Amino acid sequence: MYYMFRLASLVAAIAFSHGWLFDDFGEKLNELDEISLWPLPQIFKSSDLSFQLSPNSFQIVHGKESSAGPSCSLLQNAFRRYFEYIFGEVRKQDKRSKQAFSPDLVELQVWVTSADPECDGYPSLQTDESYELTVNQPSAVLKASNVWGALRGLETFSQLIYEDDYGTYHINKTVISDFPRFAHRGILLDTSRHYLPLKVILKNLEVMAMNKFNVFHWHIVDDPSFPYLSRTFPDLSQKGAYHPYTHVYTPSDVKMVIEFARMRGIRVIPEFDTPGHTQSWGNGQKDLLTPCYSGSTPSGTFGPVNPILNSTYEFMTQLFKEISTVFPDAYIHLGGDEVDFTCWKSNPDIQKFMKEQSFGTDYTKLESYYIQRLVDIVAATKKGYMVWQEVFDNGVKLKADTQIHVWKRQPQYQDEMARITAAGFNALLSTPWYLNRITYGQDWEDIYKADPRNFTGTDAQKQLVIGGEACLWGEFVDATNLTPRLWPRASAVAERLWSNKNVTDLSNAYKRLAQHRCRMVKRGIPAQPLFVGHCRHEYNGK
Amino acid sequence: MYYMFRLASLVAAIAFSHGWLFDDFGEKLNELDEISLWPLPQIFKSSDLSFQLSPNSFQIVHGKESSAGPSCSLLQNAFRRYFEYIFGEVRKQDKRSKQAFSPDLVELQVWVTSADPECDGYPSLQTDESYELTVNQPSAVLKASNVWGALRGLETFSQLIYEDDYGTYHINKTVISDFPRFAHRGILLDTSRHYLPLKVILKNLEVMAMNKFNVFHWHIVDDPSFPYLSRTFPDLSQKGAYHPYTHVYTPSDVKMVIEFARMRGIRVIPEFDTPGHTQSWGNGQKDLLTPCYSGSTPSGTFGPVNPILNSTYEFMTQLFKEISTVFPDAYIHLGGDEVDFTCWKSNPDIQKFMKEQSFGTDYTKLESYYIQRLVDIVAATKKGYMVWQEVFDNGVKLKADTQIHVWKRQPQYQDEMARITAAGFNALLSTPWYLNRITYGQDWEDIYKADPRNFTGTDAQKQLVIGGEACLWGEFVDATNLTPRLWPRASAVAERLWSNKNVTDLSNAYKRLAQHRCRMVKRGIPAQPLFVGHCRHEYNGK
Repeated sequence: MYYMFRLASLVAAIAFSHGWLFDDFGEKLNELDEISLWPLPQIFKSSDLSFQLSPNSFQIVHGKESSAGPSCSLLQNAFRRYFEYIFGEVRKQDKRSKQAFSPDLVELQVWVTSADPECDGYPSLQTDESYELTVNQPSAVLKASNVWGALRGLETFSQLIYEDDYGTYHINKTVISDFPRFAHRGILLDTSRHYLPLKVILKNLEVMAMNKFNVFHWHIVDDPSFPYLSRTFPDLSQKGAYHPYTHVYTPSDVKMVIEFARMRGIRVIPEFDTPGHTQSWGNGQKDLLTPCYSGSTPSGTFGPVNPILNSTYEFMTQLFKEISTVFPDAYIHLGGDEVDFTCWKSNPDIQKFMKEQSFGTDYTKLESYYIQRLVDIVAATKKGYMVWQEVFDNGVKLKADTQIHVWKRQPQYQDEMARITAAGFNALLSTPWYLNRITYGQDWEDIYKADPRNFTGTDAQKQLVIGGEACLWGEFVDATNLTPRLWPRASAVAERLWSNKNVTDLSNAYKRLAQHRCRMVKRGIPAQPLFVGHCRHEYNGK
Repeated sequence: MYYMFRLASLVAAIAFSHGWLFDDFGEKLNELDEISLWPLPQIFKSSDLSFQLSPNSFQIVHGKESSAGPSCSLLQNAFRRYFEYIFGEVRKQDKRSKQAFSPDLVELQVWVTSADPECDGYPSLQTDESYELTVNQPSAVLKASNVWGALRGLETFSQLIYEDDYGTYHINKTVISDFPRFAHRGILLDTSRHYLPLKVILKNLEVMAMNKFNVFHWHIVDDPSFPYLSRTFPDLSQKGAYHPYTHVYTPSDVKMVIEFARMRGIRVIPEFDTPGHTQSWGNGQKDLLTPCYSGSTPSGTFGPVNPILNSTYEFMTQLFKEISTVFPDAYIHLGGDEVDFTCWKSNPDIQKFMKEQSFGTDYTKLESYYIQRLVDIVAATKKGYMVWQEVFDNGVKLKADTQIHVWKRQPQYQDEMARITAAGFNALLSTPWYLNRITYGQDWEDIYKADPRNFTGTDAQKQLVIGGEACLWGEFVDATNLTPRLWPRASAVAERLWSNKNVTDLSNAYKRLAQHRCRMVKRGIPAQPLFVGHCRHEYNGK
């Protein structure tokens, strides 16, 4: 077995018609430039021997030796989902008449090898997502130690199948051994600057699974609105959401997002960003925000969370107790970015507190004071936490398992990654992946080129880099344009975080990504084009 | 009567809740910042007296004195369309029970005053689109000389109606007298770089009507593909389209686009761009393109249309004869932009022809020779033509009614507008409105600020500027992302081309445009957000 990216020239004469980018209507292609797998598996061996599949007889089944069976609804749902992705929605009238020859590949056996398949569990940072896939006559076999690896293997299996010009489905003899390069591969969506209907969030979880992402970072509240309906503090959304009924996420909405994500091997990490980015919190929680002063009188406006009141910490204790129960993941994102000191500086009570604490005029010390108390509150809930880089930069004392999220602008981010990992903390990269920022042209290339381990440091430091996240901040994005703006640009991040670090060839990536984009379109996802061209099945807006 | 933009401070205390951008759930707004009309009518007078409308009893009817009646299907369709825009799709179970009080406004009477209402005609450059609208108890009256003005007035009427928090519909006492500043207000879509399914084109014609655009410039073919199915030369699409069946526009598709556009008062001007931008033409028409040479032998690649063969002109004669029949509009766009001379220069037959014609080494003379013969061919079909600015720049002799389309980059376009109009030709502006070019942030502002008459010239010259077009070239656009990328950015162009030249206040425009965007969303159009905020009815993806 050897790396696919060294294989291109060796795999000759794969009798193969993609039907996507390189449509060969009227003539048969005898060679394939590239298989359209995305992200590219770690170890991959293919042959020019191809088998046929028929939607009338092909099945995805539990392997006899598998620890998972029909009672594993996570897998049952996945079998149905991937059957539909492969064959489309096979309606009765669409069924092709039984062909004269027998199909060559009759089934995919899914074999979960661990005693506990984790059917009812949640994925975590430690989850083993590896799988092995063998496609041979008469059965293909997918082996994984748990359901999470099986999900990744099902996606790969579905990507191996292609349709010829006559509507017949094919798959080549293949052996794949695959695992992710990084454990944390995330997408951040912002539901505060614009409210995103549940449907949009669920749709993007589907696309994330098609790209082997495994973390949905839900930046759920921020300055403009507070759509999270808290059972403990219902006024937060009642008075802080754009609309208290139509523009909120109820407990049952949140549950649905978490379950929909779980079914696809995706963790949901909520972010409740404080002490800045909290204007909307102030509408429903009296005395939470700092009153700003104009000279010696309150101006009527408010700044960040008020860090000098005990009531603030009592509120945070109750709120994060609720959050730690609602969200099953072991981590919560605590934010901590972009705290504006202007209002704190204007407030005489804050000034007095600064003197008492001997902070001088260094407001980062006040910020750290707040964050220190907050992380202690959250630690008491037994949760781990993620924070934006400022929290580390300001010297807050953090638990050893804290993840520091790097977002500040290039080119300094490499130094920051080095500093964080030198201090022994886990680091996550987002700086080059602020996908809300758009430019004219093929901007996926720069997204693709960035590598979280591209900084000066020891191997031990590099190992502390656990992954990264593509961020789609919401200033200019809502349900009308989110999906095409995010996909396939985020797919470039997906491959960087999953595939071998040597997978960097841009022209090879372009060909595969163009086909992967068409595959997403065929699956009903309005993923935008990379450049001039077409898909066999154009987006039909359903 | 006086201008709306001077009126803001006078219209006090309009008891009004938009329910769009400035949602006031739980409290009543007593003042309205601005009416959400877009584009702003020329002359507008409103009062704080409001009337109610009920979907159970309100009707849009033909006025008794109108020259149009129920047999005018263009208007009948428009009545149904606007009724649905106003009240949504009123299903039986949704109907509100008859309210205790009678609705105040019972009907809109549409009164076409000309003897010929033009129900079965086509709009043209000369069409009178003016209308007068009076909203008063118990009837509103819309007066226009023909159906085209009536369509514009119906859109305005629908924009005047607002829903309060209790679901009751209101309209204020209003008098409007309106007409467009420019006669040609277009959108260019490119169906060659990506194929656009019919559905996408029709949807955008709908949105164009919501913005009072009146020209669909159909850049139907170009280098990458030739989707126009020609009856005379079927091989052009059979061999030049991305796919000969799924990625073409059949004669019946083209008819449907033209009729759908006509019903909305929109002209369809096709562009068949030559002699450059024709790579896809060469697949289905032998000897049409110039063979390029590498030294003394043909290289196997092809350049622009071959201007030295008689067969070229015979082909063009037949093709444009067909086009002039298929498309009813009085104008055809002949392109003529960006001709690359490299291939012509390499070809010994072309070199010989250049000598015979005494063109020296000036290939613009050869280009002009071709275009001159082409425009003469098209003139013989009795059609007028539009051309890109290069044709004028190169000194081709053009008919007096030719429209010169300015597209080259800023800041030189003002000089070009001055030169074209000084020569007595009609000019159309697109340079600042290449909406395919995207940047991060609120780029609608620069789009909005541009004015086609903002150049140094006489009043007579300014009158020769007939309008402009927003262009959405297709390199990075297809069915997945076209609509949100185009709207509401093109709406900024719509107001510039329709409203009074003094309507330039950006903060006023922002408020109205944000509401207009939400109105489009409510009508099922995925128009993207301008900035942070929300719509009462978010896009639901239907």
